[in-house]
Amino acid sequence: MNFEYYTPTKVVFGKGTESRTGELVREQGGHRVLVHYGGGSAVRSGLLDRICESLKKEGLPYVTLGGVVPNPRLSKVREGIRICRSEGIDFLLAVGGGSVIDSAKAIGYGVANDGDVWDFYDRKRQAAGCLPVGAVLTIAAAGSEMSNSSVITNEDGWIKRGYNSDYCRCRFAVMNPELTCTLPDYQTQSGCVDIMMHTMERYFFKSGGMELTDGIGEALIRTVMRNARILKENPADYNARAEVMWAGSLSHNGLTGCGTDGGDWASHQIEHELGGMFDVAHGAGLAAVWGSWARYVYSENPTRFATFARRVFGLESGDEETTALAGIMEMEAFYRSVGMPTNLAELGIAPTEEQILEMAEKCCFYGRRTVGVLKALNQEDVAAIYRMAM
Amino acid sequence: MNFEYYTPTKVVFGKGTESRTGELVREQGGHRVLVHYGGGSAVRSGLLDRICESLKKEGLPYVTLGGVVPNPRLSKVREGIRICRSEGIDFLLAVGGGSVIDSAKAIGYGVANDGDVWDFYDRKRQAAGCLPVGAVLTIAAAGSEMSNSSVITNEDGWIKRGYNSDYCRCRFAVMNPELTCTLPDYQTQSGCVDIMMHTMERYFFKSGGMELTDGIGEALIRTVMRNARILKENPADYNARAEVMWAGSLSHNGLTGCGTDGGDWASHQIEHELGGMFDVAHGAGLAAVWGSWARYVYSENPTRFATFARRVFGLESGDEETTALAGIMEMEAFYRSVGMPTNLAELGIAPTEEQILEMAEKCCFYGRRTVGVLKALNQEDVAAIYRMAM
Repeated sequence: MNFEYYTPTKVVFGKGTESRTGELVREQGGHRVLVHYGGGSAVRSGLLDRICESLKKEGLPYVTLGGVVPNPRLSKVREGIRICRSEGIDFLLAVGGGSVIDSAKAIGYGVANDGDVWDFYDRKRQAAGCLPVGAVLTIAAAGSEMSNSSVITNEDGWIKRGYNSDYCRCRFAVMNPELTCTLPDYQTQSGCVDIMMHTMERYFFKSGGMELTDGIGEALIRTVMRNARILKENPADYNARAEVMWAGSLSHNGLTGCGTDGGDWASHQIEHELGGMFDVAHGAGLAAVWGSWARYVYSENPTRFATFARRVFGLESGDEETTALAGIMEMEAFYRSVGMPTNLAELGIAPTEEQILEMAEKCCFYGRRTVGVLKALNQEDVAAIYRMAM
Repeated sequence: MNFEYYTPTKVVFGKGTESRTGELVREQGGHRVLVHYGGGSAVRSGLLDRICESLKKEGLPYVTLGGVVPNPRLSKVREGIRICRSEGIDFLLAVGGGSVIDSAKAIGYGVANDGDVWDFYDRKRQAAGCLPVGAVLTIAAAGSEMSNSSVITNEDGWIKRGYNSDYCRCRFAVMNPELTCTLPDYQTQSGCVDIMMHTMERYFFKSGGMELTDGIGEALIRTVMRNARILKENPADYNARAEVMWAGSLSHNGLTGCGTDGGDWASHQIEHELGGMFDVAHGAGLAAVWGSWARYVYSENPTRFATFARRVFGLESGDEETTALAGIMEMEAFYRSVGMPTNLAELGIAPTEEQILEMAEKCCFYGRRTVGVLKALNQEDVAAIYRMAM
């Protein structure tokens, strides 16, 4: 199957690399910088000071805007757009994880295009550009530092939507695995699930496929699983943090989908509604619904699920159906082994039937779209999967 | 180990993609194009006409310069530089394999920098830029379409030298596997060896290393071996051509060396002298020397060679030393199975002792450098490996 692959992000990976931030902004032609960040951890750890120091060293004026929350909000994006316009900002520096980077990308779209930035996320029109964005990554999970995607939550209706375009790809990504060593365990493991899922979504495609893409994806999933287990025991293991961080970028930069139709992505869409309504951690939400999604759709292509089971878990058992189901159980066993939920109760939520129907409707744009390619799911299918996942 | 990863090349992969060449040149800001190509096959097949048609469609004036040979020559590069200057060329379009792309990159350096372009290859100074280069790939082998490297042969002394910098990375690479379906078998298999070797050189590093990088590299080598065997039987198999072509790009864009010291590269340096003196096919030359290099150095790190043997060939045998040597034999058996040489006699050359000493001296810059990192090889070591390979 024909494909395009475009990953222009310059990755600067390893210990102490954040000291090069100012130099990288200058290299990319930035003159006035918005330093965008989340909660207080970047401040408390002294990271933000180090970053600002490196901007000052290059003589780059900057304005800071913190307070980005998980499932980043449209209101913060709008605040950022106003600041950029009034301050003449020409470079967005995201210091944080996927939420902060996604928020910066959305600000970039808003500044570079007229009209309401939500239009892009609401599929009303296409962006024609984006202010350049650079990232200093502090959480390995979303892969936004190399991906073309950005996901924002509109508080008006708590609608969570993604928008993809090459314009928003980061110019550079500074990745120091040390910065992730103090992340709480739940967030670490939730990140690992998110990383694995970016490859698993692509792995379960409907048409196309390449042996090389499969092999890379399988190696990536095995690597993340092995290192997630190491981090469960020893959260400060630098090498394990490095493996997970690099996997996070490669898992979502397009590499693991080359030569396919792009993959399924129903699990992500189903989780987005949970994130929008219940503000759960994205990776944990994915773990909670994946098994139910897999059981609902595996019969569309049991051979693919069996291949996954054999190559990722080394399962050798008999027929395709048995092996496929055994693989789904193995993945759920892995999730539990690192403290991740495999259903909504373990995730800590109990949506009512009314909420399930509302999420299913929103997920399918009130009947205007189906989700997934392995099996195209309509509102009834999505509701059934939420119920299976209870 | 800290690393940088930068692969800005936009890949447009699949059937019929060469029709998009003009559009891609325009997207990259090209106005006047030098179309650089090799022998008559691009002309005879009609490919050159289709490319020129697509430039015309975008209203892009162009000049053509053919005649690039394998182990591309400095004299052709100088001719290209003169043409670019007199015609006001601002974009170099390489239509061919690694030789043509490398030649275009060298022209790009020559046009964008004052002084003699050979200085860069001769390690006398660094380039400060390169005219933009795009590629329409017709041979899967060198990986030059995504790499930062360019290798040129200076006829004055028949010295073959490489020069690496990010400036020369292609802006885009059009990759249609169909264009490689008519390649002669020897060239196809030689290309497969070259592709595998770009990962194998990186696999045998001295310091650093990442599980994810290993896993990707091992998957890539297995994929190329499997598909090389398919192409031996059925040269027109599109899927096999696609696997090999995509592997060629990923094998040399930096991905398979992330987190290492960059790898060994002695085999390449040793082969470069064979290429310079005897004009042999690069991949075949690599196959002819690799086993001798491996036996000469494996005792520096038998565990690494044993790991390679287990993961690439599935070998299970006993101690590290036995497994390491068995892996080297398996690789040579693979080379023979696809018609590739495993020594210089099979390569069709018989250098005299005087020629061996001359190649060893040139390879080590007359004592000014060693080659390889697993074991730093001096002139005597290199000469010994040539003799082992007889």
